[in-house]
Amino acid sequence: MQVRLGRQYRFFAAHRLYNPALDDAENLRIYGKCSHPNGHGHTYLVDVVVSGPLNPDTQMIVDLDNLDECVNAVLDTIAHKQIEVDVPELAGQRSTTENVARYLFDKLDPETTRLGIVLERVEVAETRNNRFVAERAAA
Amino acid sequence: MQVRLGRQYRFFAAHRLYNPALDDAENLRIYGKCSHPNGHGHTYLVDVVVSGPLNPDTQMIVDLDNLDECVNAVLDTIAHKQIEVDVPELAGQRSTTENVARYLFDKLDPETTRLGIVLERVEVAETRNNRFVAERAAA
Amino acid sequence: MQVRLGRQYRFFAAHRLYNPALDDAENLRIYGKCSHPNGHGHTYLVDVVVSGPLNPDTQMIVDLDNLDECVNAVLDTIAHKQIEVDVPELAGQRSTTENVARYLFDKLDPETTRLGIVLERVEVAETRNNRFVAERAAA
Amino acid sequence: MQVRLGRQYRFFAAHRLYNPALDDAENLRIYGKCSHPNGHGHTYLVDVVVSGPLNPDTQMIVDLDNLDECVNAVLDTIAHKQIEVDVPELAGQRSTTENVARYLFDKLDPETTRLGIVLERVEVAETRNNRFVAERAAA
Amino acid sequence: MQVRLGRQYRFFAAHRLYNPALDDAENLRIYGKCSHPNGHGHTYLVDVVVSGPLNPDTQMIVDLDNLDECVNAVLDTIAHKQIEVDVPELAGQRSTTENVARYLFDKLDPETTRLGIVLERVEVAETRNNRFVAERAAA
Amino acid sequence: MQVRLGRQYRFFAAHRLYNPALDDAENLRIYGKCSHPNGHGHTYLVDVVVSGPLNPDTQMIVDLDNLDECVNAVLDTIAHKQIEVDVPELAGQRSTTENVARYLFDKLDPETTRLGIVLERVEVAETRNNRFVAERAAA
Repeated sequence: MQVRLGRQYRFFAAHRLYNPALDDAENLRIYGKCSHPNGHGHTYLVDVVVSGPLNPDTQMIVDLDNLDECVNAVLDTIAHKQIEVDVPELAGQRSTTENVARYLFDKLDPETTRLGIVLERVEVAETRNNRFVAERAAA
Repeated sequence: MQVRLGRQYRFFAAHRLYNPALDDAENLRIYGKCSHPNGHGHTYLVDVVVSGPLNPDTQMIVDLDNLDECVNAVLDTIAHKQIEVDVPELAGQRSTTENVARYLFDKLDPETTRLGIVLERVEVAETRNNRFVAERAAA
Repeated sequence: MQVRLGRQYRFFAAHRLYNPALDDAENLRIYGKCSHPNGHGHTYLVDVVVSGPLNPDTQMIVDLDNLDECVNAVLDTIAHKQIEVDVPELAGQRSTTENVARYLFDKLDPETTRLGIVLERVEVAETRNNRFVAERAAA
Repeated sequence: MQVRLGRQYRFFAAHRLYNPALDDAENLRIYGKCSHPNGHGHTYLVDVVVSGPLNPDTQMIVDLDNLDECVNAVLDTIAHKQIEVDVPELAGQRSTTENVARYLFDKLDPETTRLGIVLERVEVAETRNNRFVAERAAA
Repeated sequence: MQVRLGRQYRFFAAHRLYNPALDDAENLRIYGKCSHPNGHGHTYLVDVVVSGPLNPDTQMIVDLDNLDECVNAVLDTIAHKQIEVDVPELAGQRSTTENVARYLFDKLDPETTRLGIVLERVEVAETRNNRFVAERAAA
Repeated sequence: MQVRLGRQYRFFAAHRLYNPALDDAENLRIYGKCSHPNGHGHTYLVDVVVSGPLNPDTQMIVDLDNLDECVNAVLDTIAHKQIEVDVPELAGQRSTTENVARYLFDKLDPETTRLGIVLERVEVAETRNNRFVAERAAA
């Protein structure tokens, strides 16, 4: 049996879907209203799933304060920002939620390793109907 | 007994809390991260509550297609926009969710009147934890 | 200060929107797919709100077992039925959710009176996006 | 038009339904498993609804940090406690959720008055299916 | 790392659990109220999970309009129908949600393949408490 | 393709995080308010996921009444209890939700085997934001 922990976070950010290699008409054709020049935004819900052995004393996978500190430090790099403008790793990229999920997984992975736990999955939802999951590939 | 209908909609928009009469430091003190220059955004959930007599033939308060058409026309004036920049009625105002709820109520009220129903309430949520309600005052 | 209790129930039923005074083409024009001859169905979520003074001994508004018994007896008259066929009060009527909410309010009202509490509201949702509320009019 | 704000909080507490004037058998008959000697507990979700005019500068009903501070101070008097043992106002009373909602309303009311806003309603849910609402009576 | 997309849909349908090889009394014993002759129905929530490489230009797994078109074409074969009567592949079968989930997976699988993505899972919920998952077996 | 069933249950319990090998100050440092002497409690939501072949007659994985009977028998060993006091297997242990999830998995596993189905996962949530998953390790 394995034990995992899933914990929810959220952040607010603005973004605009826009390919700088294309002109406005072509961006509008591909991304529709999501390419409006002044951008729009979302309440992003983030579900972080980690696993690891139980600490024999506390009988917990991880101290939640430690996990929160590490996740919030990553979220602070994207929260209250315009994603494809203010986040260096995503500058010039399409700020799709696929890319947001990958970005968060890549930033969180070394932090959770440092805590002695394994990052299994980062799931990002823009709405109740849609979610994008960056998941560790099976070994 | 009265019969009411509540129906949920949503829109995505960017915004920045910012008082143009104050300097940046003062805006930062009051609005914190919500005054970041490039803005942020939300998934706004909108709950519209209307009432009225049942149509004797259809035994409905209102045809939902008609209601949707009228609500979506109002939401299109704010969706995929930067609220305090692109929405004329809110330009130069604080784009608080209080003001967003009031704006939507004021724009929807004549439209629902035209449909022969009464707009009771517009409720706007930025997150699962917070909602702002613009409600018709008791006569 | 007043104290109220809201409690959720649910039932499953089939229904077909159909006005027997109109022909099939006209029903199709008004009700669309909802008039398909073999019907369709819903998971109806029902929210019952009651109020009353606290019992001085139990310090409860009502014993929940008593409330459940009374609500479930009413729901049993419509659950696992085809609404406009099997429910006598709605036979020949349009089985709109407006009418379902009114039906449940009218059936529940004498039962809750018998329990010494006041039925304030019956709210019926077919989906997360839509709900119909039959509410006691202000005196 | 009026503007209201609803905001969700939560707390964890233990409780036991038990009338000290009755013997164990009678308590068991009335409260069932809820009178088990070592108690049980709940994740209590608390929805606080306030109203008031918009501050002309911030265009908000209330600064959320101020509201949180005032609500959390009240919740701290009951959170992580055994309700009918550790909360003086409820000692010797039945720790029904009806009483918990009333207790929270009574404690919050002077605090929100101090903030210049009106406490309209405190809603306490033990589960997704049940909620108890202490509401300001119409004037 | 792999990236997946989960997207929610829903449909309304009527059904009756009934084994034509058994008599009414035996059907009643096995399926209870779910075998009532006029049927009942559900609001079926459908969660579709797909995976695939990101398109290098759009940086998306799939255009959501394309996915919606393909899922809705499949849902149209069952929505607003009486499942075990109107859906040829399920005629004479038990219209259990297990079978509904399998049916949707089998119909969707070639469509998502045509879009160049992999259908990982179809999850069908009748209520908040119950869901049935048809999942691609590990290779 | 595999078919799984997920079904939600819940129970109410009290608990206190406390390591009897440590003194009160040290327990307070590690577990904070969760080590308050009179304990606190939660509404525990439990999601049970099982798999198995469809019964050729009923075309179901398992009769839900049978599954409920077996899950509820296990939940009765912990519901309305103080976990680390009243549940023998957890006495003297830390009543973390990690341990609650493991306990439920271990108790349920032989019961579901007896029903001819495989217990895949037990997920326990204290709040909307946190869940702990005890999952069968891949063979």
